[in-house]
Amino acid sequence: MEQQRSVTADGEVLTRRRFFEGLAAFGGVSLVMAGMDALGFGFSSAQAAPPSLTGGAKGTKVVILGAGLAGMTAAYELTKAGYACQILEARAFAGGRCQTARKGFQHTDLIGHSQTCDFDDGLYINHGPWRIPYHHRSTLHYTKLFGVPLESFVNDNDAAYVYFEKGSGPLAGKPIRKGQIAADARGHAAELIAKVASKGDLDAALSPADRDKFVAYMINEGRLSPKDLAYTGTDGRGFAVHPGAGVDPGPGKPSVPYSFKDVLDSNAWRVLSSVAGYEQQRTMLQPIGGMDQIAKGFEKQVGSMIRYSTSVEKVKQSPTGVTVSFRDAAGKVGEIQADYCVCTIPISVLKNIDLDVSAPFKAAMSGVSYAPVNKIGLQMKRRFWEEDHFIYGGHIYNDMPGIGTITLPSTGWQGQKGVLLGYYAFGGEAVKVSMKTPAERAAFAVAAGQKVFPEYADSFETAFSFSWHLAKENLGGWAEWNEAGRRDAYPVLCQPDGRLYLAGEHLSYLGGWQAGAIESAWQQIGKLHARVQQA
Amino acid sequence: MEQQRSVTADGEVLTRRRFFEGLAAFGGVSLVMAGMDALGFGFSSAQAAPPSLTGGAKGTKVVILGAGLAGMTAAYELTKAGYACQILEARAFAGGRCQTARKGFQHTDLIGHSQTCDFDDGLYINHGPWRIPYHHRSTLHYTKLFGVPLESFVNDNDAAYVYFEKGSGPLAGKPIRKGQIAADARGHAAELIAKVASKGDLDAALSPADRDKFVAYMINEGRLSPKDLAYTGTDGRGFAVHPGAGVDPGPGKPSVPYSFKDVLDSNAWRVLSSVAGYEQQRTMLQPIGGMDQIAKGFEKQVGSMIRYSTSVEKVKQSPTGVTVSFRDAAGKVGEIQADYCVCTIPISVLKNIDLDVSAPFKAAMSGVSYAPVNKIGLQMKRRFWEEDHFIYGGHIYNDMPGIGTITLPSTGWQGQKGVLLGYYAFGGEAVKVSMKTPAERAAFAVAAGQKVFPEYADSFETAFSFSWHLAKENLGGWAEWNEAGRRDAYPVLCQPDGRLYLAGEHLSYLGGWQAGAIESAWQQIGKLHARVQQA
Repeated sequence: MEQQRSVTADGEVLTRRRFFEGLAAFGGVSLVMAGMDALGFGFSSAQAAPPSLTGGAKGTKVVILGAGLAGMTAAYELTKAGYACQILEARAFAGGRCQTARKGFQHTDLIGHSQTCDFDDGLYINHGPWRIPYHHRSTLHYTKLFGVPLESFVNDNDAAYVYFEKGSGPLAGKPIRKGQIAADARGHAAELIAKVASKGDLDAALSPADRDKFVAYMINEGRLSPKDLAYTGTDGRGFAVHPGAGVDPGPGKPSVPYSFKDVLDSNAWRVLSSVAGYEQQRTMLQPIGGMDQIAKGFEKQVGSMIRYSTSVEKVKQSPTGVTVSFRDAAGKVGEIQADYCVCTIPISVLKNIDLDVSAPFKAAMSGVSYAPVNKIGLQMKRRFWEEDHFIYGGHIYNDMPGIGTITLPSTGWQGQKGVLLGYYAFGGEAVKVSMKTPAERAAFAVAAGQKVFPEYADSFETAFSFSWHLAKENLGGWAEWNEAGRRDAYPVLCQPDGRLYLAGEHLSYLGGWQAGAIESAWQQIGKLHARVQQA
Repeated sequence: MEQQRSVTADGEVLTRRRFFEGLAAFGGVSLVMAGMDALGFGFSSAQAAPPSLTGGAKGTKVVILGAGLAGMTAAYELTKAGYACQILEARAFAGGRCQTARKGFQHTDLIGHSQTCDFDDGLYINHGPWRIPYHHRSTLHYTKLFGVPLESFVNDNDAAYVYFEKGSGPLAGKPIRKGQIAADARGHAAELIAKVASKGDLDAALSPADRDKFVAYMINEGRLSPKDLAYTGTDGRGFAVHPGAGVDPGPGKPSVPYSFKDVLDSNAWRVLSSVAGYEQQRTMLQPIGGMDQIAKGFEKQVGSMIRYSTSVEKVKQSPTGVTVSFRDAAGKVGEIQADYCVCTIPISVLKNIDLDVSAPFKAAMSGVSYAPVNKIGLQMKRRFWEEDHFIYGGHIYNDMPGIGTITLPSTGWQGQKGVLLGYYAFGGEAVKVSMKTPAERAAFAVAAGQKVFPEYADSFETAFSFSWHLAKENLGGWAEWNEAGRRDAYPVLCQPDGRLYLAGEHLSYLGGWQAGAIESAWQQIGKLHARVQQA
């Protein structure tokens, strides 16, 4: 669910890098590291396969709390190893945050706003996790195992617009193609440094032989004229008249680059960096038909063990076992006894459950907070972004408060209708927007998108919005650790308390990613199994 | 079919940019422009929709030579407008260069080498055109019209290897991830220039206010430390130990950047530029199941008009019509009479046909040459590039002579087997490789790939290779115009000669692209129709 850019209160686009700079200014390097941990920046999957649970389960019963990816991973692997598992799930369906909203999907938030998704058949929004980095091998382990078909997720699109209304100069508040900003910012910068280098002014840093290679690199990078090292534009920024057949349009006409000053003033260069953050790199993938295909893949394996619509009220431990008290949808209470408990309930929710753990463990649970996160899917009656703007997928980076990014769908190319992501925002601005009614949220998102695409409002049909901090089973999008929390609380929660093992993205450095949930489950059941073997 | 990089005789990777530099050194700017035309560099589609052919066909008969995309486009649009069309096609199937090799596909080249494709069911190689830029609206017009489902083509992959064996230093001959080269080359360069700028040494070029923004941009671009403007690596280049769950691996360990000297020596920076060439930009698309789905889409519409396996031997004109003499597969000769002829036969082949045209027109036909182009599909019994290297699609840029690029498939993610593109090369090295037997070509391609992937040779099962200059219906991959040809010959061939209209990618500035064929056909039938209206 992670996203690479957020927006500060004054509307400045906050890349994670800049966020870390802010942390650095505030608390030095170690705080920066903790911040990087908290946002899961650049994290890749460490484990490619589940632990090998050999030696038998010795008749051990495990009760698992939560049928999200962590809980179902634990159930699937433990069952394969011979354990008797039961899962309690508060929702009427499995998957946890791995959800997809399509026609008929219902949600009532903590404010009391009820929505039933009314998208056309075949259309959907992944309002939870929505993309899989190529290096999240744990997630990809299960998509392969369960035969969940994947397609590419377009996470970077040269043709997509960048829209910065809070910059200055003539480019502020104008949708500009990302490729044009890349061509012009890097082209002008390459010209500056190539000229400096060719005059010998970098010779303290470069040997003469390196200097020649460096200038050659800059010519290549910036598409400079090798004669005078000037940047005067490139086909990569598009054409004033597109080339075509015959003699008219024939070769077409080149486009004129933006001046370096205009590019710098616009702030649009903030979308450029040497290489994408590791977790945002190409190639990213998504399940065909919606992210919940992964949840359904797991559910096919462990669905029979799940007790749905069942909320945990109390967890009691004894020297020999665990007793979980629950209440079902009809208000009926009950108990399950087991030898061990794997608890994947988000700590935001777990804090409010009567939990029989040690005082240090309980104290550690207050060392983490959860991120407010909003998403909204907007069904458009026409794929105007493809038809009129030739944009196939990717993000519209912008500095509109409360919007984060607008993202165009990576599926259903050239279809009639489409559902785009109208906002993906976290933090304070997300809280403000989530206080609106669903209709007001849609109006807010449509008004923002209209600034980028003139067809937006006319094409809008129906919306489905979701605020993770207002979902009572989550109370936030993902765990956020500060430096003290990672240092003091996190290691405590990674260890079992008695017969209770926590698991989930919150106990990983892959925060907010499905891989974090899966790998945490792998790690915790590995510990549990080792203990059973020793017992 | 265009590709962005070729290789010189001495094995240096020749980006198009560098190729143009060579031309510039040789003949100045106008030769560069002609060279850019010849390679179709940066060309985008100019026409989004076919011409409107209103006013009736007045009983006009048109004979169309060639059932490639140009010919079938002409037949489809003219028929819709009321014309009576017939198509003669030398091959036993429609599509021209829009071909896909799958199990049972047969080809015998001019040397006499016969191959029958033996890929497993469901696997294929697009040995002709293989990707559609998002701005080729003409091609996308027909995929939408004919309901040809599309998927993303991964044309740029941060995780894909770059392999330069002819560089120097410790990185030469080592597969390196493209993202690592991007992070390190740009990071080190950004450090150099940010330091120069912050000392005020660029103040002639930048105002003090611009200087601050410029340094901020460089910090963002190069992921520099804001404190001392140093580049010390970034998560974008990957990790020494990947982050994961719990405390071990927990946050993981960062990776150490390559030195700037090593990066410069390696030549791997040649793969970097400010933005991809326009025709290579994201998002690119491909038909699900093979490029020939486009040909089949057309064939469904115009197949009944096609006379297959029929070679044109002579085209005779009179003041009132055209007579085309042909020979079919059984050796039977025949004639077709029509009011007009649209001829889409590549000029390389047309030169050898008895064509009744004016002397200037005939002379103009010698103003164009055709590119030698090779492709080979290699079926691998295991998708080791995904399983072991976590590379999902994209190109392996390299400087191995005769290889061009190796490209991993953008479809069938996580399947068991896959067909990768073992080489895509043009020019003199391609001619050399095409002289080998099919088995030798496969061995050549496998030996090259083995240098990048240790699993290559062990995984190889079967190959299918194709050399367009050895296909008797093509005699080359695409038309190549030099400056004189574009100036003197091209405009002549764009005009009708009597009742004969040429059409095809060769009469466009979208050389080698399907869009060039389609838009040329649109343009020429527009002229033909205007003439019929005036008659």
